[in-house]
Amino acid sequence: MYPYQPIINIAEICSQHGLKQVVLSPGSRCAPLTIAFARHPEISTYIIPDERSAAFIALGMAQQLNQPLALLCTSGSAGLNYYPAIAEAYYQQIPLLVLTADRPPEWIDQADGQTIRQKNMYANHIKASYELPVDYSHPDAVWQIERTMNEAINLCKAYPPAPVHVNLPFREPLYPPENFEMKFDKSVKIFKETKSVPTLPQNAWEEILEVWNLAEKVLVVGGQNRLDTELCDGLQSKLGIVLIADVISNLHPCPIDKIHFQDIFLANKEIQQKLGQADLLITFGKSVISKNLKLYLRNQKPKHHWHIQEAGNVPDTFKSLSRVIRTTPTYFFNNLAQKQKTKPHIMGRRLAYLNSWTEQEVSFINRLILPIDFSKNIADIFETSAFNEKPLSELEVVSAIMKNIHHANLHLANSMTVRYANYLQLPSNSSVEVFANRGTSGIDGCLSTAVGHALAQPDRMNVLIIGDLAFFYDRNGLWHNYLPKNLKIVVLNNHGGGIFKMIDAGRVPEADEYFVTKQSLKAERTAIDAGIEYFYANSRSDFQKVLKIFLQTNEKAQLLEIETYIEENMQILNEYKKI
Amino acid sequence: MYPYQPIINIAEICSQHGLKQVVLSPGSRCAPLTIAFARHPEISTYIIPDERSAAFIALGMAQQLNQPLALLCTSGSAGLNYYPAIAEAYYQQIPLLVLTADRPPEWIDQADGQTIRQKNMYANHIKASYELPVDYSHPDAVWQIERTMNEAINLCKAYPPAPVHVNLPFREPLYPPENFEMKFDKSVKIFKETKSVPTLPQNAWEEILEVWNLAEKVLVVGGQNRLDTELCDGLQSKLGIVLIADVISNLHPCPIDKIHFQDIFLANKEIQQKLGQADLLITFGKSVISKNLKLYLRNQKPKHHWHIQEAGNVPDTFKSLSRVIRTTPTYFFNNLAQKQKTKPHIMGRRLAYLNSWTEQEVSFINRLILPIDFSKNIADIFETSAFNEKPLSELEVVSAIMKNIHHANLHLANSMTVRYANYLQLPSNSSVEVFANRGTSGIDGCLSTAVGHALAQPDRMNVLIIGDLAFFYDRNGLWHNYLPKNLKIVVLNNHGGGIFKMIDAGRVPEADEYFVTKQSLKAERTAIDAGIEYFYANSRSDFQKVLKIFLQTNEKAQLLEIETYIEENMQILNEYKKI
Repeated sequence: MYPYQPIINIAEICSQHGLKQVVLSPGSRCAPLTIAFARHPEISTYIIPDERSAAFIALGMAQQLNQPLALLCTSGSAGLNYYPAIAEAYYQQIPLLVLTADRPPEWIDQADGQTIRQKNMYANHIKASYELPVDYSHPDAVWQIERTMNEAINLCKAYPPAPVHVNLPFREPLYPPENFEMKFDKSVKIFKETKSVPTLPQNAWEEILEVWNLAEKVLVVGGQNRLDTELCDGLQSKLGIVLIADVISNLHPCPIDKIHFQDIFLANKEIQQKLGQADLLITFGKSVISKNLKLYLRNQKPKHHWHIQEAGNVPDTFKSLSRVIRTTPTYFFNNLAQKQKTKPHIMGRRLAYLNSWTEQEVSFINRLILPIDFSKNIADIFETSAFNEKPLSELEVVSAIMKNIHHANLHLANSMTVRYANYLQLPSNSSVEVFANRGTSGIDGCLSTAVGHALAQPDRMNVLIIGDLAFFYDRNGLWHNYLPKNLKIVVLNNHGGGIFKMIDAGRVPEADEYFVTKQSLKAERTAIDAGIEYFYANSRSDFQKVLKIFLQTNEKAQLLEIETYIEENMQILNEYKKI
Repeated sequence: MYPYQPIINIAEICSQHGLKQVVLSPGSRCAPLTIAFARHPEISTYIIPDERSAAFIALGMAQQLNQPLALLCTSGSAGLNYYPAIAEAYYQQIPLLVLTADRPPEWIDQADGQTIRQKNMYANHIKASYELPVDYSHPDAVWQIERTMNEAINLCKAYPPAPVHVNLPFREPLYPPENFEMKFDKSVKIFKETKSVPTLPQNAWEEILEVWNLAEKVLVVGGQNRLDTELCDGLQSKLGIVLIADVISNLHPCPIDKIHFQDIFLANKEIQQKLGQADLLITFGKSVISKNLKLYLRNQKPKHHWHIQEAGNVPDTFKSLSRVIRTTPTYFFNNLAQKQKTKPHIMGRRLAYLNSWTEQEVSFINRLILPIDFSKNIADIFETSAFNEKPLSELEVVSAIMKNIHHANLHLANSMTVRYANYLQLPSNSSVEVFANRGTSGIDGCLSTAVGHALAQPDRMNVLIIGDLAFFYDRNGLWHNYLPKNLKIVVLNNHGGGIFKMIDAGRVPEADEYFVTKQSLKAERTAIDAGIEYFYANSRSDFQKVLKIFLQTNEKAQLLEIETYIEENMQILNEYKKI
């Protein structure tokens, strides 16, 4: 007897909840559910051998699809390799349904193979952990399995979305008998959630407007967020706000003036002093990259700091939090614009404050040692840019990519790449959406995450810019049979962790060996092994030649390796940031 | 002011406890301790970028050195990548001092970079978890740091050895000022442990001998263990025991008759029946590979089952445990041999029982479809072996390697490789010690573990046999600047997880895609990237040619890739096992 009908029905429950793609890793213990997923007519599967990469690929897919994605592995240490991606998903609020097959509970710690203590194994970074029963003979056990799976999926999605773990102990036989006819029970128990809209009552608005209507200096800082045109519509110019837009906030298309170079000009203490203390800081979204913005806000604490977030823990990143407003930023700003009764003289002072920020922005742009003309197309950039007097640098490469990709997802790896991009800016009319693993800010899954995005949305190009350490660390993200053609990887290879030269580590004698960690690999052989088309440049002329081909051909996955020197990159970046 | 003198002294404490080698991964948060380790005159450091590999390398070094090894990483998800190795170390009883740098506690969950909940992050598989204070201004905090580090190191070593976690929150500045003169305080607090010898009192021996002296059928099963000549001396022929020696038990040099082919002939239920129930089963060591031995013992439960283990949890692997004896196997068997008063007629029946087992062993060897002559040297093997009529197979390759390496550590990767080796046998006079990650039996760190062994003992050769999935999974174990020349890697590349064809998975239609996980990589480019000398064979004649060179030249790390077909391997193995 093959006892796994309740497990087979898990595939049906997933499917009915809209989980149509599953990331699997090979193993025997998970076979009952693996085979169910494999045979379910509405579910697509991806088999990824390295569980660390598998989980980051699932994370990328879930993020792109904006819904939970199931991943499944065998018992033992396999599931521990999921943990880095689970922590990233936890902080980046990405729903993952983490399924780990297990030995039956009586065999834990009995020195049998591939058996560890899987119950609560992700305790520190999981929204909920369940363990399914091992015996299905009692109908209540079947009810428990069905109820738990519904609950787990609903919980994944509930704001803030997060990973949920379900541990599934299986006894042998693990494989169905020959000629077993697998049937999915369409009438399996399903319960979904009807979500409410978090609107603010009248008295809440009164409290809000009391402060708002009188606030003369209003800063709005967007943390990491998806591209959100409705939110952009809400951030109207009649609010008179200073909108500070980190590159990962995806606020670049918002049709009002924005501040992009805050991380550069706020390095200057005099400018911090001059801009002074805001009356009101409004924040939303997840983490912020700009370190100098953080330091400025912690030094010049705003009188009020409101954070807009529907539910969940709220970080006090700027040490100034005074109110959490439990709604969505879109609802908040749209309603604020309608309800505000800001007197004209207050609005006048808001605009003056805005002016004092845009002055810094413009002043930086005008004083740019290496001006970048964002209105030009690719060929023109090379002709007019003052980069021309310098050797090819990573900053120039990132700038050229940001400028010349369209209708694409731009993935920015940790740690230096995402900083380069944050020192530059995406044009307002850019159709690019930016992604980066800024939940834990690790280098451990940046490549796999981009692969996941590309798999989940085959009709949109995904461009990843990544340093050599992050690339090789996660190269197993390329080790499977699904490498999509809508993936372009730009490897900034300076043979080490260049970021360490930019910080204090750069001046200790141990810098190169212990922090930069000089490494000699080039990406070519890895690309060939993975069946990726390979391009290379270490000079501007080569870069100009290959970039066009690289961006314009889409037959298969591509990799462009750019080799530069850390010292030159550092020098050019420092010149660029000089204000 | 650079406040880190108590942290600098951690390097001194480690050194005085004999921890002279440290595995580091790059990062900024860990800089105060990284630099202390780097500058300590008696400590050698290894910088490994991928923390997953770093931890397995540390595990290999600790295992080889037989003492705790410190590893250190930065804050955030870095430490989560240690977890697979920590679980392996936990079950394989290997002492690791796991040091994770952290943000100060006030910054946890405040959306600042590389910050996760590190406290108790390894809760399920750690002997103890500590967090050091972040502020050292009070002298009691300094006392706490020194005391904790001593305690953690002692606890690592205390039987059973295991990983211990110390989380170290650091505030900025993380780097010492220029021209900072680092001083290690030789008079730092040190307390070591004086260990006792677990001897058994008279009344315990009386209880033991009461059963022992009358036991007519005595089985002794050694689990995974280090090569231990003292233990071998204790397992004397006058005990009249049947000694069953899995390949990972390292009992091959014991100078008494041993059973090696149990996993083959116990597949036969009739033989199980014939050998029947033992009066007394004595076990020691860690896990056992032979699945058929497990099934046999669970079916034919011995009347008594004693497990010899000094301290710690005892698994009941065979469902027959009746007594745990809290001493070392060496002490136990040596004393047993002296104290026993087994009458001659009982001893006669013991020897008859031993005979019934060796009969099976001999009968298998005689009926070998593919006899392997263990008395011949390498050239002869190829001349005389009945392998000759078959295509080159993995079984033959493993056999040839086992036979032809000397004074070496043999590392057997999961899952198929270690099984092949267990179906063969090491000659009694072999100077080889066997290692395998059979704590969690994962494929995630087999390569890195072998690298760790090679680094820790430069004057002994380390030969790793590994399948393609395990090799590529863990290839970042080769990604650093320390690849030692006493490392030889044999990659059995059949382009997938061959083991799945050997088990029930082989007969489901999903076998190739979902279980075997067909993958197309060859190891050559990875070897070249890593600066490893590369050899290749896919036929017997090529294998004969390259094996000699491969084994006899030791100028640099080497890799021999053997390409074979899963189906042929399976067929040859099945013929070999036919009894």
